[in-house]
Amino acid sequence: MNFNYHIPTKLLFGAGKLNELSLEVLPGKKALIVISSGKSVKENGYLDRLINILKGNEIDYVLFDKILPNPIKSHIMEGALLAKAEGCDFVIGLGGGSSIDSSKSIAVMANNPGDYWDYVVDGTGKGLPVQNRPLPIVAITTTAGTGTEVDPWTVITNEDTNEKIGFGNEYTFPVLSVVDPELMLTVPEKLTAYQGFDALFHSTEGYIANVATPISDAYALKSIELISKYLPICVKDGNNLEARTYVALANTLSGFVESTSRCTSEHSMEHALSAHYPKLPHGAGLIMLSESYYTFFASKVPERFTAMAKAMGVDADLLPEEDRAISFVNALVKLQEVCGVRNIKMSDYGIKKEDIPKLAENARSAMAGLFAMDRYSLSLDETMEIMYNAYK
Amino acid sequence: MNFNYHIPTKLLFGAGKLNELSLEVLPGKKALIVISSGKSVKENGYLDRLINILKGNEIDYVLFDKILPNPIKSHIMEGALLAKAEGCDFVIGLGGGSSIDSSKSIAVMANNPGDYWDYVVDGTGKGLPVQNRPLPIVAITTTAGTGTEVDPWTVITNEDTNEKIGFGNEYTFPVLSVVDPELMLTVPEKLTAYQGFDALFHSTEGYIANVATPISDAYALKSIELISKYLPICVKDGNNLEARTYVALANTLSGFVESTSRCTSEHSMEHALSAHYPKLPHGAGLIMLSESYYTFFASKVPERFTAMAKAMGVDADLLPEEDRAISFVNALVKLQEVCGVRNIKMSDYGIKKEDIPKLAENARSAMAGLFAMDRYSLSLDETMEIMYNAYK
Repeated sequence: MNFNYHIPTKLLFGAGKLNELSLEVLPGKKALIVISSGKSVKENGYLDRLINILKGNEIDYVLFDKILPNPIKSHIMEGALLAKAEGCDFVIGLGGGSSIDSSKSIAVMANNPGDYWDYVVDGTGKGLPVQNRPLPIVAITTTAGTGTEVDPWTVITNEDTNEKIGFGNEYTFPVLSVVDPELMLTVPEKLTAYQGFDALFHSTEGYIANVATPISDAYALKSIELISKYLPICVKDGNNLEARTYVALANTLSGFVESTSRCTSEHSMEHALSAHYPKLPHGAGLIMLSESYYTFFASKVPERFTAMAKAMGVDADLLPEEDRAISFVNALVKLQEVCGVRNIKMSDYGIKKEDIPKLAENARSAMAGLFAMDRYSLSLDETMEIMYNAYK
Repeated sequence: MNFNYHIPTKLLFGAGKLNELSLEVLPGKKALIVISSGKSVKENGYLDRLINILKGNEIDYVLFDKILPNPIKSHIMEGALLAKAEGCDFVIGLGGGSSIDSSKSIAVMANNPGDYWDYVVDGTGKGLPVQNRPLPIVAITTTAGTGTEVDPWTVITNEDTNEKIGFGNEYTFPVLSVVDPELMLTVPEKLTAYQGFDALFHSTEGYIANVATPISDAYALKSIELISKYLPICVKDGNNLEARTYVALANTLSGFVESTSRCTSEHSMEHALSAHYPKLPHGAGLIMLSESYYTFFASKVPERFTAMAKAMGVDADLLPEEDRAISFVNALVKLQEVCGVRNIKMSDYGIKKEDIPKLAENARSAMAGLFAMDRYSLSLDETMEIMYNAYK
């Protein structure tokens, strides 16, 4: 048991906490506000509330509102150029994981030369050392899915190479994050489910990863428990603030898991899917893979699966020993049924069965790092087997 | 559920981790090393190892080796004067809680005018705002008891007023901490037990405090579980590195609890004891109070006590409902027996029964803040009742 632990982010958590941002010392005088190309943060008034807080603190700002659901490298470069041209000295990501991840990558490129892919470590990234500290990052999350508000990771797609790769270092943690579940009340049913499962899988992967520690385990099991209990309520009744709060907490805990353990190859496989089919929401892709993926791994780390089943409320001690590990998969499938996402299919997004060898190879090259986190080392054939079994 | 979360410390955890300090960027060029007046960190070679690491990184240092087991204000002022005179730009606390706490308070006073008690908020402290940021603090802990390596708190006794008071703010977190259980193998049996129970009570108090959050709860229950399992092994076999590692982890988790929840009035009562009887080890004082204290509170927050009993391995669901909460106290007493500290007595340290009214009043004035963390508000009579029942 030998690990480093570092989550320097200051977190403001709870309903109404966005207002308290005005009481904090922000890390600069001129912000680049990074939001998505969608309408929700504008129409729901979140952007105006943020701007009012900045004005009240005499902080200037520039808006960059082009981020796509699966954010792309060219927007990172464009945002960084804007931040430089306008003399922004910090970045605020407002929105879901795409906006916050983009704010991190823009913060890197606003203070460093060359191309973003020069610094990306996996795939065709050049893996050069980041020379200068990124601009300070503030994150305000309006979804509960990525945990990015308390982890260093940012996932960007290189649209030229069809690679969707995670990147981060100790300076890409947000210095300050707001998790205000009131901002999540308007997330539609389907997205609530997709994002909630993304959070769940950060915790389940982090729990079965070979770099898990007792600290990440505590976060992961609590997060799994809370999502199992409260995600179905959020999906059915988006206005239930208590349930939204618990799912938001579970998501933040899953971000702690990503900061203290790591994701596994499930995420690599999904990144291959959504890099090639950018309309596929990341959480949906994970759901499509999950039954097959966890069925494969159940026999590889049975004790860990039993603990996850218990966190989901399964009374696993009452089961015959050979059924305990797989009872996690049963609980997972049941949760997907209750949340109305049991029947989503790769074919709905145009993915073809004959694409799988290419997608499996892409997963293994672009995101090789996460395959190294598995407790059982997958061959290419086994990677394809998991993806074939997941195909509908 | 509304809270702020901020533990900015970077933690290096595990056997052998002290060596990795040489790979870290330290926060200055000249350190004040703060150690106790005892011999252990010198005789065990820990000080030499630290000095070699500093030399290897071309970092200068000055040694301040006067800290008492219950550290006093005059040493804080003396250490701060030395740091100023020598131009130290950071502070390293090496040792147990006393040395690390002192390094924090010295870091405050090295950069601020006046007297330390000007800034202390409770008791006769003037509660003035701290004007300047403290020097950066590095902590290297050689015991598993206070959790101070990952929390902002420092507890210092004002020897003029017999007040032992905690203090801290967001800049008194260590920037970097090393928890290397190899450094703990030499802690003697009795101290191992006292320190282990101190860690336990940070978690139990933090769990029953009215500011607990689901995050602090997860830390606390894990810490309680690990201490119950591994402290008896450490006490019996100090060289068992695995058990030392788990207790070190439990202690660090209890520090996370102190950073995310708070201690309760049990700590206030103990501070009154050891402020007046400085030879009483803090952990021993807590043990003396604990059976009476937790018996009193068991009926006030029964569900929380049942959860703590379960974390200690009690199969509480099998008990009649009225016995579940108190089963925590039974498990606690049993743990004290197994660790050989069941029979320590206040009278052994010269504490007289007739002192109790004065001590109860001191607890309530000097550390009033922690009484406000109780889920049931104790009267002075009830405070005395708890202390009388604890008296042997």
